[in-house]
Amino acid sequence: MAAKPQHHDRPISNIVIVVAMQTEALPVVNRFQLTEDPQSPFPQGVPWVRYHGTYKDLNISLIWPGKDPALGVDSVGTISSALVTYAAIQALQPDLIINAGTAGGFKAKGASIGDIFIISDCAFHDRRIPIPVFDLYGVGLRKSFETPNLVKELNLKVAKLSTGDSLDMTQQDESSIIANDATVKDMEGAAIAYVAELLKVPAIFVKAVTDIIDGDKPTAEEFLQNLAAVTAALDVAVEQVINYINGKCVSEL
Amino acid sequence: MAAKPQHHDRPISNIVIVVAMQTEALPVVNRFQLTEDPQSPFPQGVPWVRYHGTYKDLNISLIWPGKDPALGVDSVGTISSALVTYAAIQALQPDLIINAGTAGGFKAKGASIGDIFIISDCAFHDRRIPIPVFDLYGVGLRKSFETPNLVKELNLKVAKLSTGDSLDMTQQDESSIIANDATVKDMEGAAIAYVAELLKVPAIFVKAVTDIIDGDKPTAEEFLQNLAAVTAALDVAVEQVINYINGKCVSEL
Repeated sequence: MAAKPQHHDRPISNIVIVVAMQTEALPVVNRFQLTEDPQSPFPQGVPWVRYHGTYKDLNISLIWPGKDPALGVDSVGTISSALVTYAAIQALQPDLIINAGTAGGFKAKGASIGDIFIISDCAFHDRRIPIPVFDLYGVGLRKSFETPNLVKELNLKVAKLSTGDSLDMTQQDESSIIANDATVKDMEGAAIAYVAELLKVPAIFVKAVTDIIDGDKPTAEEFLQNLAAVTAALDVAVEQVINYINGKCVSEL
Repeated sequence: MAAKPQHHDRPISNIVIVVAMQTEALPVVNRFQLTEDPQSPFPQGVPWVRYHGTYKDLNISLIWPGKDPALGVDSVGTISSALVTYAAIQALQPDLIINAGTAGGFKAKGASIGDIFIISDCAFHDRRIPIPVFDLYGVGLRKSFETPNLVKELNLKVAKLSTGDSLDMTQQDESSIIANDATVKDMEGAAIAYVAELLKVPAIFVKAVTDIIDGDKPTAEEFLQNLAAVTAALDVAVEQVINYINGKCVSEL
């Protein structure tokens, strides 16, 4: 991602973690003892929630898009995550965004349940616009902010991510995911990468595998079965990443 | 849409028109003699453009998401349109949003090239989440703000809209579009409806048919062929709608 933050040479002090689901968010909230902001930085009517706290030298906000006001389920997907990322950057001016969440993985590309990946590239697999150049806009391939030292020090796997608004996968989705060379598939990452790039905030992506897409089990069933256990692993990985980030400049990651 | 605007009993004074493509935007900009805002109400880095002017008793802003900074094509689709709608509502606090744009139409549902529709219902056709209640969230069915007097007076056709981020249509998209009972298909409407509902601003949708999806011609070709002629018809329809709105309260529409 062509992010050119202004303060590469200053230790990171202000982090926004964007998490789509409450089940993914709460372990991180508890681990860093974040508390819900009594005065929401967001406009009236939106369900978006900010949890906030300080940890070591860091000011941490975890932003969760909240429950859909009409239906009561997590506001997953690209539109909500793009909106909260935009609003959080405007309100909180973070030095760094971390999108942490669960994802489907492809065993053909080496993914297993519980694997944690740092994402090198994000793209969309469900925005097909077969007109020259619009086709590239639809795919929306973006490099994430590169963190070679973090990845090496924490011995984390690196993979490419493909994002779409469906939990299932059609044949056309699959072709696009293969074209994107993706090891993991989620419903938010590329949208968050898009907004972060527009507003020139470096963003990193920590994805934990809840289900094997090219395996035997139905995705929805496997996802729900593994969600709690895998979010616990995700939470440990996020703590490692935060501990590594503490005291460092963006350019040192 | 469960929009509950505060000032139903006051004449509408402040309108935001959201238009995804420059080709669709410029005829409306010219017709109302709008000029590009020298001081953008939007943050640095975003390509979003506001054209602004007064017409009769109305303060009109046309918001166009602009050209993608890296690729130079219109920033079409749900994410950009959700973001600009959010940012425009925050910055300009409109009494009413009008999303005007082109769409594909289904001849099996009575649509022809050049038809203008006012949208009664918006839903998504590419957000499949096969988990109870999440499935409904994905479809995201919303009633538009109802304008029975406007529709009757201007003798406009009314139809349901289905929105997705692809210009083409897969079998799964088609099944969802049929389930949504949609006559027209676009790439922005349901996303704009989502944001307008969150922020409780009434939104109406004016869609002009550029291509027949269940016809003989490839969508991309037919779309590009008819774009200029149909945007001229769209522009006339937007003027009729604006003239009707002028001097009226939201509750009189």
